[in-house]
Amino acid sequence: MKSKYIIGAMVALLALCTPNTIAQETTGMKEFTLEDLNFGGTNYRNMIPGNRRLTWWGDQLVRLEASECYLVDKKTGKETVFFTLDDVNEWLGGTPDNGLRSLSGARFPYADQSVVLINYGGERRLVDFKQHKQVWSQCNADELQASSFNTVSRHTAFVDGDQLYFRPADGGKDIQLTTDGSREIVYGRSVHRDEFGIHSGLFWSPDGMRLAFYRMDQSMVADYPQVNLFPRIAAHEPDKYPMAGETSHEVTVGVYDVATGTTLYLKAGDPKDRYFTNVAWSPDSKTIYIFELNRDQNDCRLVSYDAATGNRIAELYRETDAKYVEPQHPIVFLPWDDTKFVLQSQKDGYNHLYLFDKAGNELRQLTDGDWVVMNVVGFNTSRKSIIISSNECSPIQCNTWEVSVATGKRTLLDNGEGWHTPSLSGSGRYVADSYQTPTVPRNIEIADVKTRKHTAYYESPNPWEGYKVPQFSCGTVKAADGTTDLYWRMVRPADFDETKKYPTVVYVYGGPHAHNVDARWNYSSRSWETYMAQKGYILFILDNRGSENRGKEFEQATFRQLGQQEMRDQMCGVEYLKSLPYVDADRIGVHGWSYGGFMTISLMTNYPDVFKVGVAGGPVIDWKWYEVMYGERYMDTPQANPEGYAKCSLLPKAKDLKGKLQIITGYNDPTVVPQHCLMFIEECIKAGTQPDFFAYPGEGHNMMGHKSVHLHERITQYFEDYLK
Amino acid sequence: MKSKYIIGAMVALLALCTPNTIAQETTGMKEFTLEDLNFGGTNYRNMIPGNRRLTWWGDQLVRLEASECYLVDKKTGKETVFFTLDDVNEWLGGTPDNGLRSLSGARFPYADQSVVLINYGGERRLVDFKQHKQVWSQCNADELQASSFNTVSRHTAFVDGDQLYFRPADGGKDIQLTTDGSREIVYGRSVHRDEFGIHSGLFWSPDGMRLAFYRMDQSMVADYPQVNLFPRIAAHEPDKYPMAGETSHEVTVGVYDVATGTTLYLKAGDPKDRYFTNVAWSPDSKTIYIFELNRDQNDCRLVSYDAATGNRIAELYRETDAKYVEPQHPIVFLPWDDTKFVLQSQKDGYNHLYLFDKAGNELRQLTDGDWVVMNVVGFNTSRKSIIISSNECSPIQCNTWEVSVATGKRTLLDNGEGWHTPSLSGSGRYVADSYQTPTVPRNIEIADVKTRKHTAYYESPNPWEGYKVPQFSCGTVKAADGTTDLYWRMVRPADFDETKKYPTVVYVYGGPHAHNVDARWNYSSRSWETYMAQKGYILFILDNRGSENRGKEFEQATFRQLGQQEMRDQMCGVEYLKSLPYVDADRIGVHGWSYGGFMTISLMTNYPDVFKVGVAGGPVIDWKWYEVMYGERYMDTPQANPEGYAKCSLLPKAKDLKGKLQIITGYNDPTVVPQHCLMFIEECIKAGTQPDFFAYPGEGHNMMGHKSVHLHERITQYFEDYLK
Repeated sequence: MKSKYIIGAMVALLALCTPNTIAQETTGMKEFTLEDLNFGGTNYRNMIPGNRRLTWWGDQLVRLEASECYLVDKKTGKETVFFTLDDVNEWLGGTPDNGLRSLSGARFPYADQSVVLINYGGERRLVDFKQHKQVWSQCNADELQASSFNTVSRHTAFVDGDQLYFRPADGGKDIQLTTDGSREIVYGRSVHRDEFGIHSGLFWSPDGMRLAFYRMDQSMVADYPQVNLFPRIAAHEPDKYPMAGETSHEVTVGVYDVATGTTLYLKAGDPKDRYFTNVAWSPDSKTIYIFELNRDQNDCRLVSYDAATGNRIAELYRETDAKYVEPQHPIVFLPWDDTKFVLQSQKDGYNHLYLFDKAGNELRQLTDGDWVVMNVVGFNTSRKSIIISSNECSPIQCNTWEVSVATGKRTLLDNGEGWHTPSLSGSGRYVADSYQTPTVPRNIEIADVKTRKHTAYYESPNPWEGYKVPQFSCGTVKAADGTTDLYWRMVRPADFDETKKYPTVVYVYGGPHAHNVDARWNYSSRSWETYMAQKGYILFILDNRGSENRGKEFEQATFRQLGQQEMRDQMCGVEYLKSLPYVDADRIGVHGWSYGGFMTISLMTNYPDVFKVGVAGGPVIDWKWYEVMYGERYMDTPQANPEGYAKCSLLPKAKDLKGKLQIITGYNDPTVVPQHCLMFIEECIKAGTQPDFFAYPGEGHNMMGHKSVHLHERITQYFEDYLK
Repeated sequence: MKSKYIIGAMVALLALCTPNTIAQETTGMKEFTLEDLNFGGTNYRNMIPGNRRLTWWGDQLVRLEASECYLVDKKTGKETVFFTLDDVNEWLGGTPDNGLRSLSGARFPYADQSVVLINYGGERRLVDFKQHKQVWSQCNADELQASSFNTVSRHTAFVDGDQLYFRPADGGKDIQLTTDGSREIVYGRSVHRDEFGIHSGLFWSPDGMRLAFYRMDQSMVADYPQVNLFPRIAAHEPDKYPMAGETSHEVTVGVYDVATGTTLYLKAGDPKDRYFTNVAWSPDSKTIYIFELNRDQNDCRLVSYDAATGNRIAELYRETDAKYVEPQHPIVFLPWDDTKFVLQSQKDGYNHLYLFDKAGNELRQLTDGDWVVMNVVGFNTSRKSIIISSNECSPIQCNTWEVSVATGKRTLLDNGEGWHTPSLSGSGRYVADSYQTPTVPRNIEIADVKTRKHTAYYESPNPWEGYKVPQFSCGTVKAADGTTDLYWRMVRPADFDETKKYPTVVYVYGGPHAHNVDARWNYSSRSWETYMAQKGYILFILDNRGSENRGKEFEQATFRQLGQQEMRDQMCGVEYLKSLPYVDADRIGVHGWSYGGFMTISLMTNYPDVFKVGVAGGPVIDWKWYEVMYGERYMDTPQANPEGYAKCSLLPKAKDLKGKLQIITGYNDPTVVPQHCLMFIEECIKAGTQPDFFAYPGEGHNMMGHKSVHLHERITQYFEDYLK
């Protein structure tokens, strides 16, 4: 296949790109501060690539700005004013003082209607921009615990005070659907700790006349004690947290029928130790599909239910795996054929698309190859094709493709470079193609799926123009298995001199469902790396086995032994570093957060003579303190895999700490609870080793806003104090 | 007075002692480790001055060792074996395997009986060492929540499972006296957070037939949330903690009458916002005396109650003060005249003794002068005198005196040097006089109160023989008021060279009820100071105004503005340091714990250009988070003294932090709760300053056992990293 040939060449090009990419002239250039570079910094917004806020009105591309919106000509990229904020306020009869303040959140939900959806004055409103008047409104529930608005029926479901409510489109009174909602009985919100692709708990049927919703009973789950330090007297605010091997919550799926006003629950049997994931509706709003997974996470079934009775209809698909199955995507029906749906699975080793009929017969595999489908962007009904994102071009790229459902033929819809974030028009005819490459901060093109034509629309200026920009490069090393290519990124000072020896910091994450190195701008370098390079460090980042987008075997290499293969792979990167004459092997540091914090301490204690300084944020210390869903997927339970838990635990490693290690946590981290790092510190104290520690009061798993600037100044200072 | 003249000379001698006390020959000498020096260190017990465990059997002095006890000849100091552990086990019929293991806890409660009181096999036992048999036993309650044994009646009161019990001497069944004891209703234990000299909650009448006990209702007190990190899943363990200005607990005093089997409560009126302190009994066991204090702590009354009815009898004494009155000592009746009692008060400016009759008439002031009575050691009935400890000899000494009740004449009972810890024999005739001086690790003499003769008994060898011992010195500077002498201690390296410039660390406490500098061995230098001096630092410790033993005005200088005068005084010490050619003024650090942590951060942020490095342990940050009893005594409530609280708060000072500051806390500190330091850190984060932080999991206000070694290694390392 032609496209494949081209892509192969590009992979080689990326993999071979040598460190000496751009010669730097740094005299008289500006220096970065963390206020420039860091998320939450006072100048951060000026230092990131420019962008355009775009949305679709059917096949019309609309650019949204605060004070006006524009129609974008898809053939020329030229903009004409669509309407302005003042227009809308005039139509609403508001005044400049208390009117709508910005159009940036506007949406155009109906391709065939000249209405814009806005939120203003506590109301969700539809305003006709041709007739210049409001045509519908409803009290807005967006600020509540959860809410979901269906554009077809215009009904809203929401959760307030832990109870689920239905708010009819016609302005009628809210109907309370539950009474026993509480901290322990959770309605309408994400369950299973956001694993399995779950991120909400309200699922409208396509016609908006039935609402599926999650109910999670976590009364049997242990509390993790959290302390709110901010009241006059600190207060206990417990958080239900099921730890690996311990009693977990029980989830059921309810259905509220607007027409009958009744609520029923799907008859799925005993919910104990089961996961109910990826809720999907049939196009006719009559059937609900759920991927049901056992607690061992190695046996997954796609089950259909009658939404009117709650009866189980059939098991349509079953997938087992010696290690684990991880359903992450609801099935999606073909818009032009409601008897067939697309299912994603990595059963052949890579995440691919499969076409099924409603009876559960697998008709054919739609995509295949040693690359992964990263996203189903949408459909083009007239061409009967699926638009997807994949890394077929290169393991570190993300490109947009059209896949013919009939033939499986794939056609690249973008330039085959970099990392693309497509937005598909209503009919699937056009793609707003926003992308970066290692040297392109952000371009946006408009692609015509039918004609294959690309129209240039937006090109971000280089936001770092005039600054001393470090040298970014990328390459591969072989993994510890001797065969697998692992991608790395390197960041070197702007005035890099290969005759010098530089202190070098390995930044690491290393866990599943993430990667660090890709073909975005500056290879997706984190801004802190630039700051450190400016201070005279080399930064090195490598995606070890276990990270995402490389297929099942790559990911599952870590099963039941988290951290072990990852460390071996990271050490391949360190060996490469040591082979470089300009890397000072006596001054190697390591830093990572969360899983990367776990990796940092693992590396510091397993290779105490390699890493002189480390900073570990929010680190997992022993997987027994992590939650059931994620933890048991990779580690099984502590009861079933005691050797694995023992091998991966950092508690017995506390005595091996030799270098300087600072552990940082959000004092109220609800994800990697502080018990992890504090019990590691306890072990260090017993063993007579001396880690350093810092806690951000009131913060969770990541430091938000300007605290992130403080954090990165802190991390930097630690390396400055002890590595330089 | 003759003694005063001698003392004055000694004060001058101490104050003038120059730094160059002892020339050091350090070649070939051993170096200290923290395992040698620090409490909890593996070699600590070998490195502290030797001692003798002594007790009295009437006027017979007995030395207790694990395997035998000795009678000490008071005229010669010679010892003869009294009886052995094997003897006792033989009398008890035990075997070497399961017998009594040590005699070190033995007591001889009856001067006229040949019995020894021991605990063995879960029983409290009286063994007749002449008749060689056990004569009485009772199930031991010492390991329970509280217990008190009366040697006269041999009855025991104890608290178990939060309930109060009476255990009769005759072996009869335990009688449960309360049923509503709980975390919120506390019986028989110390109340008012151990302030006002309170350290227990069970008070037997002299005849052991009535039991007064505290009942504290703290159901209305807010919980401070504490997290126990050590269970499988961390657990919330709240602690009732009344913060300054907030709702406090309510205390009442109950009386259980053994003869009638009834319990009543003293009719003291509404207990809200009142303190009931220093419970005392009349010699006839019929009357109870209590110092009752208002919440403002400026109005204190001595009130008597009828123990048989609970009726209030009379107010015998009242003391008010513009700042505060702090009752700390129960009244004590004269053993030879049960119509008169001795009361301690600092109403004349210094803590002194006053003689009262039972009706509350002040008969006369027994002691006076610009020095303080530190302890009433006991009485000599035949001479009708009181034995006291006082610092009449020097503000930094503690000596033993006899005070004639009839004339007030004082006679020094010891050598007039150093710091004496007397133990009085049954009749008051003899004193076992254990003491240290700056150059004496520990000597014990036996003093005859009647003949004034002293017999040498024990002399500790120098435990630091052969080590590189630093140079200890002591002196005074004027306080910020320009007139008051403040005592300081300095510790310099063993190989001190006055032509060099040394980094210097100020160790500070600074709070009330404590002092650091006294005339004990090495001027009471803390062992960490020796460790630091060995590493090349000079240590400097100064007792500022507000510290103890210097009288009321000295102590109350800090009223409503804690930390402010203390800082000014500490800066007088720093000015002195800067005047010394061998102190490097650019390398001055500061370290303190608790109140000293508060002082450390106060100094670091108020004098950011003076102190380069600080380590603050368990620091108070804002007195609003400290408890009612201590906090309001010195600061009043936040409502009544908002300016004072604002001035002393370190929260607005977070922005002024310039040097390196490490804050250390016990993660479960119940005294200075972690809200203090964490909210300071929060302010630093907001202000962009960078304190360091460490927490000891599971630890309270002070690190116990070997963790203290870890802590001091940590503190040392911080100065090594940033001050050296």
